[in-house]
Amino acid sequence: MDLSFLQDKIISGQTKIVMIIMDGLGGLPLEPGGKTELETAITPNLNSLAAQSELGLTVPVGPGITAGSGPGHLAIFGYDPIEYEIGRGALEALGVDFELGIKDVAARGNFCTVDTKGNLLDRRAGRLPTEISQELAKLLRTIKVEGVEFFIEPVKEHRFAFVIRGQGLGDALTETDPLKTGVPALKMHALRPDSEKTAICVNQFVDKARLLLANKQPANMILLRGFTKFPKIPMYQELFALNPAAIAVNGMYRGVARLAGMTILDLKGDTLIDEFSALEKNWNSFDFFYLHVKQTDTCGENGDFTGKVRVIEEVDAQIARLMALKPDVVIVGGDHSTPSVLKSHSWHPVPVLLYSKYARGNGITEFGEQACTHGSLGILPAKAIMPIALAHAGRLAKYGA
Amino acid sequence: MDLSFLQDKIISGQTKIVMIIMDGLGGLPLEPGGKTELETAITPNLNSLAAQSELGLTVPVGPGITAGSGPGHLAIFGYDPIEYEIGRGALEALGVDFELGIKDVAARGNFCTVDTKGNLLDRRAGRLPTEISQELAKLLRTIKVEGVEFFIEPVKEHRFAFVIRGQGLGDALTETDPLKTGVPALKMHALRPDSEKTAICVNQFVDKARLLLANKQPANMILLRGFTKFPKIPMYQELFALNPAAIAVNGMYRGVARLAGMTILDLKGDTLIDEFSALEKNWNSFDFFYLHVKQTDTCGENGDFTGKVRVIEEVDAQIARLMALKPDVVIVGGDHSTPSVLKSHSWHPVPVLLYSKYARGNGITEFGEQACTHGSLGILPAKAIMPIALAHAGRLAKYGA
Repeated sequence: MDLSFLQDKIISGQTKIVMIIMDGLGGLPLEPGGKTELETAITPNLNSLAAQSELGLTVPVGPGITAGSGPGHLAIFGYDPIEYEIGRGALEALGVDFELGIKDVAARGNFCTVDTKGNLLDRRAGRLPTEISQELAKLLRTIKVEGVEFFIEPVKEHRFAFVIRGQGLGDALTETDPLKTGVPALKMHALRPDSEKTAICVNQFVDKARLLLANKQPANMILLRGFTKFPKIPMYQELFALNPAAIAVNGMYRGVARLAGMTILDLKGDTLIDEFSALEKNWNSFDFFYLHVKQTDTCGENGDFTGKVRVIEEVDAQIARLMALKPDVVIVGGDHSTPSVLKSHSWHPVPVLLYSKYARGNGITEFGEQACTHGSLGILPAKAIMPIALAHAGRLAKYGA
Repeated sequence: MDLSFLQDKIISGQTKIVMIIMDGLGGLPLEPGGKTELETAITPNLNSLAAQSELGLTVPVGPGITAGSGPGHLAIFGYDPIEYEIGRGALEALGVDFELGIKDVAARGNFCTVDTKGNLLDRRAGRLPTEISQELAKLLRTIKVEGVEFFIEPVKEHRFAFVIRGQGLGDALTETDPLKTGVPALKMHALRPDSEKTAICVNQFVDKARLLLANKQPANMILLRGFTKFPKIPMYQELFALNPAAIAVNGMYRGVARLAGMTILDLKGDTLIDEFSALEKNWNSFDFFYLHVKQTDTCGENGDFTGKVRVIEEVDAQIARLMALKPDVVIVGGDHSTPSVLKSHSWHPVPVLLYSKYARGNGITEFGEQACTHGSLGILPAKAIMPIALAHAGRLAKYGA
């Protein structure tokens, strides 16, 4: 079922949908036969919501595939994460909250160290401190090339986001990073005619950067890779006739939400309480809210089982505030699993709960991986959640007479 | 999710995967409400493994589709069984352990009976005894045609595998079997230029066979159909970066495994014990093992419920030997169902168990059709099992950042 099939059946409405994404929600028990993080957490409010919800497990990309946050989010937002791929360059720019536009081509940049002959000694310039990167970025911003603009945004240590903006730019480009030392940075060239102007301008930029950085140590040169244009995905406004808002602390999630057409809401602080306050404050202005919880994933990545349990319990404590707003449809789920025993994202399906007054019950009063295995949604592709949510919100017309 | 998407994410490793395929594993109860063969079998070792595994039911080809052994195996091996079809000619050759190569075109052959005018009297020559077919095959092997080689391998009764080998052969050919009596065998012709040489050579072969067999009764002529080239499927080595081995007694399964790139291991005898001994003996030389159990299917086909139960119990008794090897991932499943009440293959999904230390529990301590219905893998396409197994074995990289 492709998006255009869905789009044809969309009907406007006044109903409101809230999607709470706990990043990396799915987990594993510490010992075989034990409980996962979500099953360990004491979640009276989520359990009570589960009793009025349909439960299931979402597969972000496909069986066995571990999803990054980009594809994981695109999938739960309703897009096919293989068809709509977000390149590394764009992710880097989105991650520092850069507002990528349709005239932009983004890349991942590294400060690096070269010897007097220009051969690479260290591709990461000794992972130089972020503060030095910030100073060097200011220097790079002084570079001008006729007809285009450049943006340099430090990320962390030696990494920066690189964006070139102008008319007629393309991203069919080779990379300047040879991925090994002892050789010089590569000259970039275009793989398609539509990218020739970009190659010329970027090569000029790199030549000027080489001169500017020549006397800096250890970061006396740059490498660029992962060139990507602004990823075009159908926006929620046209696709689903929704007026969507995003509540997220971290740049990358704000960025992906922006690609889908969501308005990024201001936050007073970066706590969960601030996020739910933003939901309350903006309740009347939008009909779709995506609220992102980062710390579940952070704890999972750190191997902090107890921490992840605690974050889930903190989310649980906010559920009453959410339900007091009387949303028509609530989705609570994740973009992928991040079991703390693995200290990384994983391929395991992700628990999901879909509340609406039209939910067909599961006879289950618990929100957890095993409970969701027996839920009425079954195990389903993550991209199927939005159509189901739209149906529960009365936003999808009948197909056929 | 196609295979090239998967292939891009493969990472090499040292982990080991074992896939035990009980042919025709899925069953049905003798009476409604009763237990299936697998549920009846006393399987303490499989049950204990189930408690540490993810359970599910595999659909070999699609809903309602009864799979033959060829597509059933391709699917559980990770290939789309509709995209990668193995033609009848190739299956016949694989079934007699013939090592099909890339210069070969294979067909199914029949000995038949014709009258003095050459019109067909019996397309199967009275299902003549296999021993007579073997004698006639020796005669056919004396036929020579310039520039190509022929191989004639008796199968059973009137059937034989026919292979033509040479440069520039194709399989876009009509068949010589008119599929009715009272008419002569058809002259073969090519449907594409790439198969013209083959048509000429095969017609010459048939003309010579007619003369050679003229005085034999009842088998005085041959029919050929189902021409197929060597089926090219991506091999496990390149596709999954695995070094795979197959343990199987019967030719067809060895043949399909060979197509996937598996090394066929020698067996001391043809018992289950011999098969598990081969697994132990070769444990250090490979990282993927496919072990095929034929008798479950044979008993199913014979309507022998009790026999099928006993074979499953015999497999259960070998599980300790398998687990003593400390495999990282174990799959126990089937290529299709063969319920003994049906005495044939069936469309019913097939129980599957996937053991790994990263298995998310089901809270189920039993391996059977009903238990698997509640498993954490759900009901899934058989071809999804390999990606999940590779993920559990740490062999798949993350998709997207």
